[in-house]
Amino acid sequence: MSLANLKIHGILKLGFVLFTIALNSACKNDTKAKEVVSYTDVKISEYKDLERIEPLNWWVGFKNQELQLLVKSPGISKAQPEINYSGVTITSVNKGESPNYLFIDLLIDHQTKPGKFNIEFRFENGEVKTQTYELKPRIKSADNYVGFNSSDAIYLITPDRFSNGNPSNDINVNLLERVIDRTNDYARHGGDIKGITNHLDYIEDLGFTAIWPCPLLTNDMPESSYHGYAMTDFYEIDPRFGTLEDYLELSEKAREKGIKLIMDQVANHCGSEHWWMKDLPFSNWVNQQKTFENKEHLTNSNHRRTSNQDPYASAKDKQDMSDGWFVPSMPDLNQKNPFMAKYIIQNSIWWIETAGLGGIRQDTYPYSDKEFMSRWAGAIMNEYPNFSIVGEEWSINPLIIGYWQEGANNRDGYDSNLKSPMDFAMQRQIVNAMNEEEGWDTGFIKMYEGLANDFYYASPKDILIFADNHDMSRISTQVYDDVDKIKMVLGYIFIMPRIPQFYYGTEILMNDTAKPGDHGLIRTDFPGGWEGDSVNAFTGKGLSKKQLDMQQFVKKIVKYRKGSKAIHEGKTIHFAPENGMYVLFRVLNDEVVVVILNKTSEISLSTSRFEELGLKGKNIKNIISGDISVWEDSITIKPNGVTLFSTKN
Amino acid sequence: MSLANLKIHGILKLGFVLFTIALNSACKNDTKAKEVVSYTDVKISEYKDLERIEPLNWWVGFKNQELQLLVKSPGISKAQPEINYSGVTITSVNKGESPNYLFIDLLIDHQTKPGKFNIEFRFENGEVKTQTYELKPRIKSADNYVGFNSSDAIYLITPDRFSNGNPSNDINVNLLERVIDRTNDYARHGGDIKGITNHLDYIEDLGFTAIWPCPLLTNDMPESSYHGYAMTDFYEIDPRFGTLEDYLELSEKAREKGIKLIMDQVANHCGSEHWWMKDLPFSNWVNQQKTFENKEHLTNSNHRRTSNQDPYASAKDKQDMSDGWFVPSMPDLNQKNPFMAKYIIQNSIWWIETAGLGGIRQDTYPYSDKEFMSRWAGAIMNEYPNFSIVGEEWSINPLIIGYWQEGANNRDGYDSNLKSPMDFAMQRQIVNAMNEEEGWDTGFIKMYEGLANDFYYASPKDILIFADNHDMSRISTQVYDDVDKIKMVLGYIFIMPRIPQFYYGTEILMNDTAKPGDHGLIRTDFPGGWEGDSVNAFTGKGLSKKQLDMQQFVKKIVKYRKGSKAIHEGKTIHFAPENGMYVLFRVLNDEVVVVILNKTSEISLSTSRFEELGLKGKNIKNIISGDISVWEDSITIKPNGVTLFSTKN
Repeated sequence: MSLANLKIHGILKLGFVLFTIALNSACKNDTKAKEVVSYTDVKISEYKDLERIEPLNWWVGFKNQELQLLVKSPGISKAQPEINYSGVTITSVNKGESPNYLFIDLLIDHQTKPGKFNIEFRFENGEVKTQTYELKPRIKSADNYVGFNSSDAIYLITPDRFSNGNPSNDINVNLLERVIDRTNDYARHGGDIKGITNHLDYIEDLGFTAIWPCPLLTNDMPESSYHGYAMTDFYEIDPRFGTLEDYLELSEKAREKGIKLIMDQVANHCGSEHWWMKDLPFSNWVNQQKTFENKEHLTNSNHRRTSNQDPYASAKDKQDMSDGWFVPSMPDLNQKNPFMAKYIIQNSIWWIETAGLGGIRQDTYPYSDKEFMSRWAGAIMNEYPNFSIVGEEWSINPLIIGYWQEGANNRDGYDSNLKSPMDFAMQRQIVNAMNEEEGWDTGFIKMYEGLANDFYYASPKDILIFADNHDMSRISTQVYDDVDKIKMVLGYIFIMPRIPQFYYGTEILMNDTAKPGDHGLIRTDFPGGWEGDSVNAFTGKGLSKKQLDMQQFVKKIVKYRKGSKAIHEGKTIHFAPENGMYVLFRVLNDEVVVVILNKTSEISLSTSRFEELGLKGKNIKNIISGDISVWEDSITIKPNGVTLFSTKN
Repeated sequence: MSLANLKIHGILKLGFVLFTIALNSACKNDTKAKEVVSYTDVKISEYKDLERIEPLNWWVGFKNQELQLLVKSPGISKAQPEINYSGVTITSVNKGESPNYLFIDLLIDHQTKPGKFNIEFRFENGEVKTQTYELKPRIKSADNYVGFNSSDAIYLITPDRFSNGNPSNDINVNLLERVIDRTNDYARHGGDIKGITNHLDYIEDLGFTAIWPCPLLTNDMPESSYHGYAMTDFYEIDPRFGTLEDYLELSEKAREKGIKLIMDQVANHCGSEHWWMKDLPFSNWVNQQKTFENKEHLTNSNHRRTSNQDPYASAKDKQDMSDGWFVPSMPDLNQKNPFMAKYIIQNSIWWIETAGLGGIRQDTYPYSDKEFMSRWAGAIMNEYPNFSIVGEEWSINPLIIGYWQEGANNRDGYDSNLKSPMDFAMQRQIVNAMNEEEGWDTGFIKMYEGLANDFYYASPKDILIFADNHDMSRISTQVYDDVDKIKMVLGYIFIMPRIPQFYYGTEILMNDTAKPGDHGLIRTDFPGGWEGDSVNAFTGKGLSKKQLDMQQFVKKIVKYRKGSKAIHEGKTIHFAPENGMYVLFRVLNDEVVVVILNKTSEISLSTSRFEELGLKGKNIKNIISGDISVWEDSITIKPNGVTLFSTKN
């Protein structure tokens, strides 16, 4: 989710963006009786006397022995909770400002055994309410939660638009948005978790080793709920996407194929229909809560994100940035409230542990309180040292990107604990390089100098690179639907020292050229994902020759990448663009991978300049065609396109 | 000197630039008998038996006790030098590869007394040559060489074009270029050191506290010698600019007025007519020396300066960058040769000590060997801990700018020891801000976000900022001769946390609009600098009302700046641009300085947003008009222009 999405052509009209993104903010339907969907071991049906208790369960064996339970029930703040379970101690009890909340701090001793126990809430009048709670055993060791890294290639999916595996869950009468309309780009189309699970074979066959579906949690919003970024329950899979069981099945089946599951999380905001918005526990649970309750004019974030770094930013601008709402339909969570802070951290850990995640993608990263975000990532990495988190900040300024990466040595002392920022800077430079005429300071030089900036980053190979994503024009549209340029972009992105992320559909040349930058169009249905689709990109049926060719291109390069240590962790050497060509090498031991980008009609390249690589006389294999040739004083290359060679035959 | 000078309109055609700058490289005139001009205590006339000995003299009392003498004389390498002077020891003697050079390493004991002594050179055949050498006493303590800093404002001058104080030295028949032609922008015009000295009153009256004249050393080149960057003798003032005495007089008179003298030095290259080019001491004294001697095709620098930082730059690109020649008329000095390295360091120290400099500006900074440049600056700062050096790298990438600053904490471990890089990035952003329509990410936001990048710099206030310089279009031309925009730029530049540098003539709206970017036109004669000029900017005679107004504007703001601790070292607070206005404050104790940039026709500004400054009810003085008013809920500001307030009345 990013406001900056309309900046793709260099112009952002804020008013328009707010309008576009804020469709959710339309008038609220009447409240309705909502059946609670049950889905986990701690079934909601097990709530005896309480409305909610969160996290839904917990585990024994974490490094951090503390757990804070949010308990919601009418008048519960007047009750005294008691637990009798060996190893579990109540260390403190805090009342919400609303009488209907209690926050119970537990200490879970390292010797505590897994099991269920009752929490008894005793009222002064002698009444007792009882709630069962479970501490589960951990299924695998913390070290085995291995996050995505530079050995992976990530396939990004907009779940509503990928494949409808279970048409029976398309409409849920208990939720506010009840329409399926594939002709409307901003309505729900019915794609779901089952649709992804059904096509893991396809994703695996393309060579991808990680998937990042956009959020799957309940967005019970009246409109545009398909995108998933306005969560109304942080512990529930949106029934229109499936159940927790479906999610766990996706995770399990992906894991069997060596595909990591990345969860898209949002710590900055919730949807305005979130259950707690009707009865907030504290007067500062969300920023500007009173304004919201009084139906007064809300202050949006000023979206001046540089105030996070700017040593001169005024206190006013900083506050407006962090505490303003992203859009009026998305209440801004106040992570400075320590109960909210714990709530978010525990929620993230709950999902990692429950679903065996292989990473988190954190939405609108710089809009949250940055000190909190550091603690949040720190808490996760403390429990799962090999895990990965990628944070979204849409900045084309490498200084900002680098600031957010763990180990940045920032002068203000800030360390994010974030392994992976996103490389919007390099993405922009790559596209500029494609679209500009070659010149002294235009064209390929933008990529060359962009990559040179890696000297600044704590760990360049852990930064996420992408040709496009769900918030920007598709790469095809960005390079004016020039297939050779798309291939140049992908050839570079999959081989440069980064973690590559690829958006579903680029392999079949999906574009938004009809209306560049239109979010609905960017997130077009993947053909074959719906029964009766005349074209099926999973099977190839009905795809054009160009589409099939691109699918093969992606498959060849991503599969090569999967087994290439030189790409995963090798040395990078590149040569300043000359004569409309740009050449980059990755090297590890005997493996040398070469990317040659060529904007000219030349079909040969003199290799004398690359002597230091020591390739002369060696066999090289064309990664796409499979042809084998010898690295001589001159080599044959593709005119107007990308050539990929490897010494691994 | 910068290749990038034609990038002002975003387009650099390398061929054209090389052509423009390389005018010097035209065919060499025949060699001629050249009278040596005498100018110092160690007069050239004192050379008895030797051709040259450099440094021309030295001092007792440096921290570094080592001194290396370059001795040039036919066959001198066969001689054995001897010195009998208490405290001076010859520690080693090295022959050049040419038989006509000796390099003598001396150790000058801390107890050594100043004085003159003879060096005797004994040949195997019994012949003896003798040379007098002097060790002078130091005039002031090392701590008293105080370099320019954020309390200063620097006036940059192209000496040939400022004022002709001594018409008698305009033409020197012993030098190759013997024409004075004020109608030719690339010929010499006759400006000189005396011309600057004569007008120190004017510079002082404008409020400037430092001057940076472009190089004044001999450029005995056949063409375009006026710019000064192709030195043919590193120890001689160009006779057409004056004598060493003239230079020392300039330094002395400037010092009396509290004006620091900054010397423009070049460590990267010399002119192709440098005296040593006919008989080089070593085969690697300059890079590609053999190619030069054999009149073969020289390799220019690839000018891909990012290879200095790029962790992936190929060895070939790095070498082409650093060892290629800047242009064919400027041999690339090889600072990896340890004798060349010492020669350059000692030359810099010689000039600091001789002329009592208040700073060095180092030309083409990133083209020299960067390890050497660090040692060079380190050696100077070791002797003069309060000195200042500014290095020229024409980069609009803050990452590169920051990399070069002392204390950068670069990941590759590099520390430049350089106090001041140049802020070409901010200069570009300021001009973009002026010329772009206000929008979400256009206009003032470019300045606001550009300044936010200061979080990255080791010491933002020590970075040099400027509206323009001798290598780029004048600021008037850059903002399409909009006087209000020029004032906005200057208002900002003189108040932001930087060291401001100002190019002579901007105060009278000099421009190159007739032929934007033309170097000769950028460096137009300052009116009144030549006898008989019909307009005299020093006296105001013949200036237009607009010019007089700008002169007053510059004077008011620079003079205010001179006494303003808030500007020199105060805190900076700025507010994200809103409604076509951008407001920046500098604060120290009771002094608050406010810059309000306004692109609208609004004449009032609501101050509620700036509450954190605590200005309400305080008297504020308009720095330009002197008017006093009160900071109320709304204040009156200049429409379409800059308003400058101070709480100091």
